[in-house]
Amino acid sequence: MFASTPEPPYYAVIFTSKRVNDTGYAEMSARMMELAQQQPGFLGIESARGADGVGITVSYWSDLESIANWKAHAEHRVAQQRGRNEWYGGYVTRVAKVERDYAIGASPR
Amino acid sequence: MFASTPEPPYYAVIFTSKRVNDTGYAEMSARMMELAQQQPGFLGIESARGADGVGITVSYWSDLESIANWKAHAEHRVAQQRGRNEWYGGYVTRVAKVERDYAIGASPR
Repeated sequence: MFASTPEPPYYAVIFTSKRVNDTGYAEMSARMMELAQQQPGFLGIESARGADGVGITVSYWSDLESIANWKAHAEHRVAQQRGRNEWYGGYVTRVAKVERDYAIGASPR
Repeated sequence: MFASTPEPPYYAVIFTSKRVNDTGYAEMSARMMELAQQQPGFLGIESARGADGVGITVSYWSDLESIANWKAHAEHRVAQQRGRNEWYGGYVTRVAKVERDYAIGASPR
């Protein structure tokens, strides 16, 4: 539920999307979660999607190179293409450097 | 749904939470959304919560001072306290500097 991340700095990829169709989505999403976790520099992932189809997924990475490598990963590129063509009405991706974090009743580490 | 944000750099506050009780939550959440939008430096907000109670809210700000001011806002502090005591089983907050963004079928600006 809460990603376990190291002391900052590290990086976050904030992916906000509107899902308009879910045929085949669950399988691909599960596969991408599994695959992301195998990538160098992957630190963790958090995700939530409401009944209105709006979802936010934040993946955490040690550095920008790891993010670029994951974006370019062949199997992930196929998923991205299917996302654009089949599942998402639109999405915005933001790459950000986490400078500090704090928690209550949970631990980021 | 998608926050309208300027060209990077700007800041994101990633708030990941597990809601365990929702009595009085909707009213406070709506009030905080309204109040946040009135704060200097506020750029936009995106939010999603799933049926499992896990939610991610990302608010965007022009600078760190604006984030600090919002965190210290008297009415927001009351909401934070109620959040810890009543609504959330736990949460993690991360402050991050957005370095780049891109979109498909949506615009961050």
